Amino acid sequence: MTIALIIPDRKLEDLQQRLRAALPGVAIEIWPQLSDPAAVTFAVLWKQPAGILAQLPNLKALQSYGAGIDSIVTDPDLPALPLARVVDPALTESMLRYLAGIESYYRLRLDQFNRQQQQALWKPKSPRTLQTLCVLGLGELGAATARYFQAQGYQVTGWSRTVKDIPGIRCFAGADGLAPALQQADLVICLLPLTPATTQLLDQQVLALMKPGVILINVARGAIIDDQALLAALESGQVQAACLDVFRQEPLPATDPYWHHPAVTITPHISAVTRVESVVAQIAENYRRAEQGLPLLNQVDLQQGY
Amino acid sequence: MTIALIIPDRKLEDLQQRLRAALPGVAIEIWPQLSDPAAVTFAVLWKQPAGILAQLPNLKALQSYGAGIDSIVTDPDLPALPLARVVDPALTESMLRYLAGIESYYRLRLDQFNRQQQQALWKPKSPRTLQTLCVLGLGELGAATARYFQAQGYQVTGWSRTVKDIPGIRCFAGADGLAPALQQADLVICLLPLTPATTQLLDQQVLALMKPGVILINVARGAIIDDQALLAALESGQVQAACLDVFRQEPLPATDPYWHHPAVTITPHISAVTRVESVVAQIAENYRRAEQGLPLLNQVDLQQGY
Repeated sequence: MTIALIIPDRKLEDLQQRLRAALPGVAIEIWPQLSDPAAVTFAVLWKQPAGILAQLPNLKALQSYGAGIDSIVTDPDLPALPLARVVDPALTESMLRYLAGIESYYRLRLDQFNRQQQQALWKPKSPRTLQTLCVLGLGELGAATARYFQAQGYQVTGWSRTVKDIPGIRCFAGADGLAPALQQADLVICLLPLTPATTQLLDQQVLALMKPGVILINVARGAIIDDQALLAALESGQVQAACLDVFRQEPLPATDPYWHHPAVTITPHISAVTRVESVVAQIAENYRRAEQGLPLLNQVDLQQGY
Repeated sequence: MTIALIIPDRKLEDLQQRLRAALPGVAIEIWPQLSDPAAVTFAVLWKQPAGILAQLPNLKALQSYGAGIDSIVTDPDLPALPLARVVDPALTESMLRYLAGIESYYRLRLDQFNRQQQQALWKPKSPRTLQTLCVLGLGELGAATARYFQAQGYQVTGWSRTVKDIPGIRCFAGADGLAPALQQADLVICLLPLTPATTQLLDQQVLALMKPGVILINVARGAIIDDQALLAALESGQVQAACLDVFRQEPLPATDPYWHHPAVTITPHISAVTRVESVVAQIAENYRRAEQGLPLLNQVDLQQGY
C-alpha cells in the first residue's frame, strides 16, 4: 500500500503532500528513499532509470506523470502492467495558449522584428497572411488544437495514424494521407506521439511535401524531426521558420546549431507542463482503481504506443 | 473639384484608383503633381510639409489619412478648416490583434526565451501571471482595448482626460486619477492621443506610480514617453519590460539606445496601419459632405487635439 514517485531531478514534496491529502492512510514515498520496496503497489513515473521497476515486485499499475509515455516505455525492464498517462484539461489549455501565442508571434512577424532589432533595422511590414493550418496528430491535444484554429477562421487539415472524424476538419491518415494533409498548409503543428512509426517522420521527403515557405511548430517530441533535414529545409527556404519547444536531447546542448539559426525560435519545453494541482485527482483515482483491479483512467494501449 | 493626396514618401496609386472608382468625375491628384492648385477643395494629409496648404486657396476641408492628427496639426500653416480623422474598424481590429499577440508574447515569456536563445541558455519557466491591466487613453482604440482585455479575464482600469463610463472598467481621469489607475496594473498600454497635455506625460514621476516590475506597451506616440526616464526605469527594474511600436523620431535612428536594450522589444510602427480598402469610403463620404458644407464624419475638435 505504498505509492512510489520515481521522477528523477524534480522537487516532489508538493506532489507528495497533495497525494497524502487525497489518499489518507496510503504511504507516498519519493524514490530513491523507499522504505520497503515490496510494499510498493503503484508507481508514478517520468524518465525512470532502467532497472528500477524490477526491484518493485508487487507493482499493480504504472502512471505516467505527463501526457506522453515515451520516456517510460523505452525502459527495457518495463513490466507488463497497466500504464496510464495524464489527460489534463489544464494541460490542453496551456498548450492552446502557447500555440495561440506562437501563431500571433508569426502573424505579427515578431520573429523578423526581433532579428531586425538586433541589427537596429527599421523595416515595417504588414502581418503575414496565414490561413491554412495542418495538425499532425489528432489525439486529445491535436484534436483540441485543430478545433481551436478552425474556430479562429483557419482552414484546418489533420493527419493521424487512423482516420479521425472531427467536424470542420479535413482529416487524413496513413502514409498516403501526408501529402494532401500537408501541401496547402501555411502553418504545420506537430502534436504526434513519439512511437517507432513517428520517429524521424518529418524527414527530407515529408518536409518536401509541405508548402514552400511553411512555418513549422513542434510541441510533441524532438525525435519526430530529422534535424539535419529540417536545417537543410530552413537553409533552402522550403521551411520559412520553425518554432521548436522539444528536442531530441533536453536541455538542448549549447553547441546545437538550432540555437543560433536565424529562422528558429526556441522555447525550453514549456508549451504544456503538467500542473500538480490538476493531476493529483487522476493519480489518486488510478491508485484506487489499481487496488481494485479496475481499468485505469486514460490507460495506454502499449501496442500503439499511446 | 479636385482631391489632393499630400502624403510624402508613400505609394498612393492604389488609393488614387480606389477614390476615382468611388467618386466618378472627381479629379484625384497626388502631390506634388497638382495640375491646378486653385481647383483643390479637399486634401488627404499625412505629415504634409509645412507651407503646402497655404498654396491651396480653395480648400474646404482636411482629412487625416490615419487615426491620429498630431502629424497634421503641428503644421504652422494649417488653415482653420474642418479636419477629420479615420476611424476604421479594421484599424481597431488590427490594434487588438497586435495587443493580444504582445500580451501572449509576454505571458509566455517569449522576450526572455529569445534573449536566452541568443546565449544558448535553457531555462524553462512557467508563464508570467498577468491579471491586471491599465489602458491610458479611452478613445475608440483605448475603449476597445479595455473591453477586449476585460473579456479575456483581466481586471482593467482606464485613464483619460475626461471621465468615461465603460461597463466593467474602473475609469479614472485627470492628474489625481493617474495613481489609482496605474498602481495595481501588471500591464500598462498607452493609447493616448499626442497633445500638449500628454507630451512627456510618462515621465519619472508617473513611471514611479506604476507597480514595480510593470510591463509597458506604447502603441500611441513616442513623444508621450520621456525616453530618459523610461530607460532609467528599465535599468532599475521599476519597469520590467517595454514593447515600443512608436517613437519620437521614426524610423528610430540606428544609434538610439532602445535598439539594444535587453528589456525592450521594438516593432516598427505596425500595430495598426490604415488599410486602403477600409478608408476609401470614409474619405469619399467626407469629400461629399465638405462639398455640401455638412459636418464631417469623425471630425476632430481642434481645441482638445483629438
